[in-house]
Amino acid sequence: MSHLSVIHLSLDVPVHGVCVLGTSLVVDISGCAPKDCTSFTITCSPRVLVALKSKVTSGKDKATVWHSLAEPVCALVKMVLPSSDVDEDKVLVSYYRANEEVPLVTAVLYLTGIEVSLQTDVYRDGHEMPVNKQTKETWVWGPAGWGAILLVNSSPADVNPDTQMVVSEDIKELTQMTLSIQGPTCILKNYRLVFHTSEEEAKKARVFWPHGDASGTFQLLLGPDRNSYIFNPLVKLGKETIYVEAIEFPSANFSGLISFSVSLIEDPPISSIPEIPVYKDTVVFRVAPCIFTPSTQMPLEVYLYRDVKVQGFVDAVVALSEKTDSQMASVYEDSNRSGKWLQDEMAFCYTEMPHKMSSFVLDTPRAIALDDFPMKYALTPGIGYYVTQDTKDHSVASLDTIGNLMVSPPVKAQGKDYPLGRVLFGSSFYPSIDGRDMSKSLRDFLYAQQVQAPVELFSDWLMTGRLEEFMCFVPVENQSGDAKDFRLLLASPCACYSLLREKQEEGYGDATLFEGVSPDLLHANGREAKTINQFLSDKSLKNQNDYAEKCIHLNRAILKEKLGLQDEDIIDVPQLFCLEKLTNVPSDQQPHRLFARPYFPDMLRMMVMGKELGIPKPFGPQIKGTCCLEEKICHLLEPLGLKCTFIDDFDCYMTDVGDACACTNIRRVPLAFKWWKMVP
Amino acid sequence: MSHLSVIHLSLDVPVHGVCVLGTSLVVDISGCAPKDCTSFTITCSPRVLVALKSKVTSGKDKATVWHSLAEPVCALVKMVLPSSDVDEDKVLVSYYRANEEVPLVTAVLYLTGIEVSLQTDVYRDGHEMPVNKQTKETWVWGPAGWGAILLVNSSPADVNPDTQMVVSEDIKELTQMTLSIQGPTCILKNYRLVFHTSEEEAKKARVFWPHGDASGTFQLLLGPDRNSYIFNPLVKLGKETIYVEAIEFPSANFSGLISFSVSLIEDPPISSIPEIPVYKDTVVFRVAPCIFTPSTQMPLEVYLYRDVKVQGFVDAVVALSEKTDSQMASVYEDSNRSGKWLQDEMAFCYTEMPHKMSSFVLDTPRAIALDDFPMKYALTPGIGYYVTQDTKDHSVASLDTIGNLMVSPPVKAQGKDYPLGRVLFGSSFYPSIDGRDMSKSLRDFLYAQQVQAPVELFSDWLMTGRLEEFMCFVPVENQSGDAKDFRLLLASPCACYSLLREKQEEGYGDATLFEGVSPDLLHANGREAKTINQFLSDKSLKNQNDYAEKCIHLNRAILKEKLGLQDEDIIDVPQLFCLEKLTNVPSDQQPHRLFARPYFPDMLRMMVMGKELGIPKPFGPQIKGTCCLEEKICHLLEPLGLKCTFIDDFDCYMTDVGDACACTNIRRVPLAFKWWKMVP
Repeated sequence: MSHLSVIHLSLDVPVHGVCVLGTSLVVDISGCAPKDCTSFTITCSPRVLVALKSKVTSGKDKATVWHSLAEPVCALVKMVLPSSDVDEDKVLVSYYRANEEVPLVTAVLYLTGIEVSLQTDVYRDGHEMPVNKQTKETWVWGPAGWGAILLVNSSPADVNPDTQMVVSEDIKELTQMTLSIQGPTCILKNYRLVFHTSEEEAKKARVFWPHGDASGTFQLLLGPDRNSYIFNPLVKLGKETIYVEAIEFPSANFSGLISFSVSLIEDPPISSIPEIPVYKDTVVFRVAPCIFTPSTQMPLEVYLYRDVKVQGFVDAVVALSEKTDSQMASVYEDSNRSGKWLQDEMAFCYTEMPHKMSSFVLDTPRAIALDDFPMKYALTPGIGYYVTQDTKDHSVASLDTIGNLMVSPPVKAQGKDYPLGRVLFGSSFYPSIDGRDMSKSLRDFLYAQQVQAPVELFSDWLMTGRLEEFMCFVPVENQSGDAKDFRLLLASPCACYSLLREKQEEGYGDATLFEGVSPDLLHANGREAKTINQFLSDKSLKNQNDYAEKCIHLNRAILKEKLGLQDEDIIDVPQLFCLEKLTNVPSDQQPHRLFARPYFPDMLRMMVMGKELGIPKPFGPQIKGTCCLEEKICHLLEPLGLKCTFIDDFDCYMTDVGDACACTNIRRVPLAFKWWKMVP
Repeated sequence: MSHLSVIHLSLDVPVHGVCVLGTSLVVDISGCAPKDCTSFTITCSPRVLVALKSKVTSGKDKATVWHSLAEPVCALVKMVLPSSDVDEDKVLVSYYRANEEVPLVTAVLYLTGIEVSLQTDVYRDGHEMPVNKQTKETWVWGPAGWGAILLVNSSPADVNPDTQMVVSEDIKELTQMTLSIQGPTCILKNYRLVFHTSEEEAKKARVFWPHGDASGTFQLLLGPDRNSYIFNPLVKLGKETIYVEAIEFPSANFSGLISFSVSLIEDPPISSIPEIPVYKDTVVFRVAPCIFTPSTQMPLEVYLYRDVKVQGFVDAVVALSEKTDSQMASVYEDSNRSGKWLQDEMAFCYTEMPHKMSSFVLDTPRAIALDDFPMKYALTPGIGYYVTQDTKDHSVASLDTIGNLMVSPPVKAQGKDYPLGRVLFGSSFYPSIDGRDMSKSLRDFLYAQQVQAPVELFSDWLMTGRLEEFMCFVPVENQSGDAKDFRLLLASPCACYSLLREKQEEGYGDATLFEGVSPDLLHANGREAKTINQFLSDKSLKNQNDYAEKCIHLNRAILKEKLGLQDEDIIDVPQLFCLEKLTNVPSDQQPHRLFARPYFPDMLRMMVMGKELGIPKPFGPQIKGTCCLEEKICHLLEPLGLKCTFIDDFDCYMTDVGDACACTNIRRVPLAFKWWKMVP
């Protein structure tokens, strides 16, 4: 009856056809034409469109157009709306003899239109719009692009494994898709509908359908173990809302694209004939990426590891939070995590689709074990939790952790806009025997997010391997149109030596570093209270700092190139380093080389809370009652509108790598730019 | 001496710096300026460029420009050529008192320029051009794009695993890359050079270096087990040519991009300081994709499985080859391959870079075992052999094989150009219990080539699952500018019934199908010699063909959409199908449903050799001494300039699936379009 290549009209009996919206029927018009007829006209009912070469006839056309029968003619017949009853729509073809105005005979094609479609928010404006089949099958980046979006649910509802049911009102917050099945029931009952995706894509998403009986109850249609669901027999469902969530972010083996299809399958006329697919409608979604926030964004919440040992630090952070109206949350240490985890192993991220944003902690745990996530229980309600199981190197000073990254503010470099900034991560820069690197899988995860194109920096020279020991972004007032609204602070041993030399020349050569810090504390941290003169004559320390300077210089060149920075966008912050053996590592795993550590509390490891900066107090030489390092950094930063608070807690900043230390993790205001409006 | 953030000039002693070409030194000009000086001038030697804010001074500038000292001033110093000797180049900064024309004092910066770079054919024109660092690090598609290309070597040379040496003149045919290391030896000896790539990328390529001693001997620098090579100590190498080949085509886990870098590592001044990277130069290559040729391309070589059982077929193919000036090659069956493999399991492909093209057989063997490749030994010298080990489903009628694909001629669809056509492959269209599909890895391989964007068709309804049983592309004269230079032939049961009915109406209802075929042969193939009248009254056969018609119609709609075809680009070729149980499969693996097979030798399975078509003789009803099926197809195709030869070998076309059957594989003229000039 339907779906044959060509429908042949007949003068003897009406012909019947079923037309799925979005498809065309080819109708042979000349095949049944009486031999003595030379022309024909076509009329059709309002839901029908007939295309004859380039001329389209609709049901609304009143004018009669004569067409020649000189050559064989086929028409393409489409329907724009489903029919309510069988044979409700029709096409009439009337055949005329030469020079006669009354048709000799009329052939009738009865049509029944059915609709099978998936619709969703393809134009990313929060509204479902009917779009054509081809558009829904592609996903296009950019302001003029299209394609719907799925969010990874970092707090997914629990599905009962036996019944595949879930009771949760939260499901209604997920991305919606409308399945429309419309047409006369007696036609639809001849079909089955298969709702499906590929096995691989089914592992990345879950699709729910409201269960008829109870409100708030949903059935899992598709998910990791089921990539197809059959509506059989097909009945008139009308328009049903389906809810979809992603369960994985893009990664090396997952582009982030997930397609869902409905295939209309015709029941065969007799059992020995196989069933046959007659139509497929497909919608492709992109899983929203995991986005990291730069330190230049305002803080929302400060998660603080509270330990009585670092009370000075805790007090300062609490005070800063109050100043900036950020919320405070306390987290208590888990011994399995062996310290430092709050900053090293997790990052606050967000993900976004039109009209919905979701914040979560991205965790790359060093030890994966159940109930091993103290952070999870400290989170503010509504903040999700997502674990990537990609970490390979579980050693204490590993670079294979999400803590080994930083994000630049939005930049433009080499002619390309990065409206969400770029992810910066540390590496060994070139392969070497004891070089430490981020694992391929975690690197691939960062690249797979696409919207914050990663840049690899050289951080293996530092004992912690962490970028934040030598660099930091701070927000500044955008004074003129051209200037950037941030500055990059870079640690500069050279600037520190200049400052010390300057003070020596001014006659303060006897001023002492670490004055006021107790000798026990200094000794415990392997430091000595030296004078400026002693410092400047220490050749070994100078060599070590020349090394650090060169390492930072290499990164400076990369940062200038990859972030499009000028020298005036960079501020050199005086900081000294020294080389030490890797601590907290068994002697047989001890690398030959030495690693750099800050000599005094690292001023680059500042907490950036808008214009308020919480800077580790460096305990530099006191000159006229003022620490010359503090004075210098204030002189550099305060003209830019920044306010420096020095956090007085020597011990917490000088603790050994891997030991429990003072740390915080800050959840910040997401970037305003919508990721789908960029072209990666 | 070098690589510090900022070089501070001195009035007391000359300052020395090393500048790697491609980097800048920051020189502090105002730091040493005498207090009473208000302005300065800069001069430099010819290899030096000095940028002061936006003004650039080169060694060739004669005019003296005075700059103010009112604000702190830094200059960026670059070198454009390496120095031959230490301190050969210099920058002179002269300081002036107000209103004086003779400088008070002059500071000197001595410079030594060294060059460390990788150059290759970045602009894809067959020539190495020096390009800037940023350009080499990116790969851009399209006519205005850039980025060098690697070919997969499908006939790689054997490297001696002990010495990592290879003796082969063929290495010189590979992609070339020039490593330049230039500068004074006494400076270079302070550095090591690490030539490297990532571990993952090293698995995809091999890099050779000519061995100093013997000509034709090459050392493997990088390859699957070694991702870095150290030149230590670094001496003046000058310009050395390095040869690179890829060993894998792009696939699911391999984008096709491979970067090689040289990192310049400075030896530390004392042993307690770690070595330090100071510069990295990177070149990114893309591995050329595997490209399939459509049947509309002229044949070059016909590989023919010779078996005495199908002598009629062999004779016809030999005659056709002679007519089209194609070479003939004979291949003998390997019993392990269990038949059909010559067409099913392999395809002739090519790959290309500027000025070099390489043809090869892509094999997806059903059984992977050493020395299991008879085809390999039949190949014309120069034709390579590449095995993908991606096949998962090894069953006889598997769709998981490279034989399950076809290529369209170049097309334009939905506003997008596909200048190399699109790969078409068969599938089950929707998930079902006994649906057969191409494995994800093979599908991913096809998608990963990028340049022939794949289209999935529905072929699981056919016993063989092969597209060529219902479709075929033939070349035609491009009569007018608008018309396409090919036609898509589609099998049409409907057209066959029309033809038979027409003959019945003309009074030939008693003409017999399969007239002249021996009853034994018919019986062995499950066929009967029936009259047209008998045929047209066989309701069961009509049902089966309505099913086939619907399956083909579904594909027709996809093909029209995805290849941008109009109905006039498609020719319906009369062909009947019938439904049978899957043959050569154990009964416990027998699916419930039946599969379609051609009822008479399938005319769509024609050999397309330019305008010469070798069409399986259908043995249709003889009317006035002519087979009406042959007459019909000649009537359809000959007006398009095509010439039909009917191959008289009933047995070879009707043999059971999986049995040894007549088959050929044709190597064709590659497409003229260069793949790197498209944007996928």
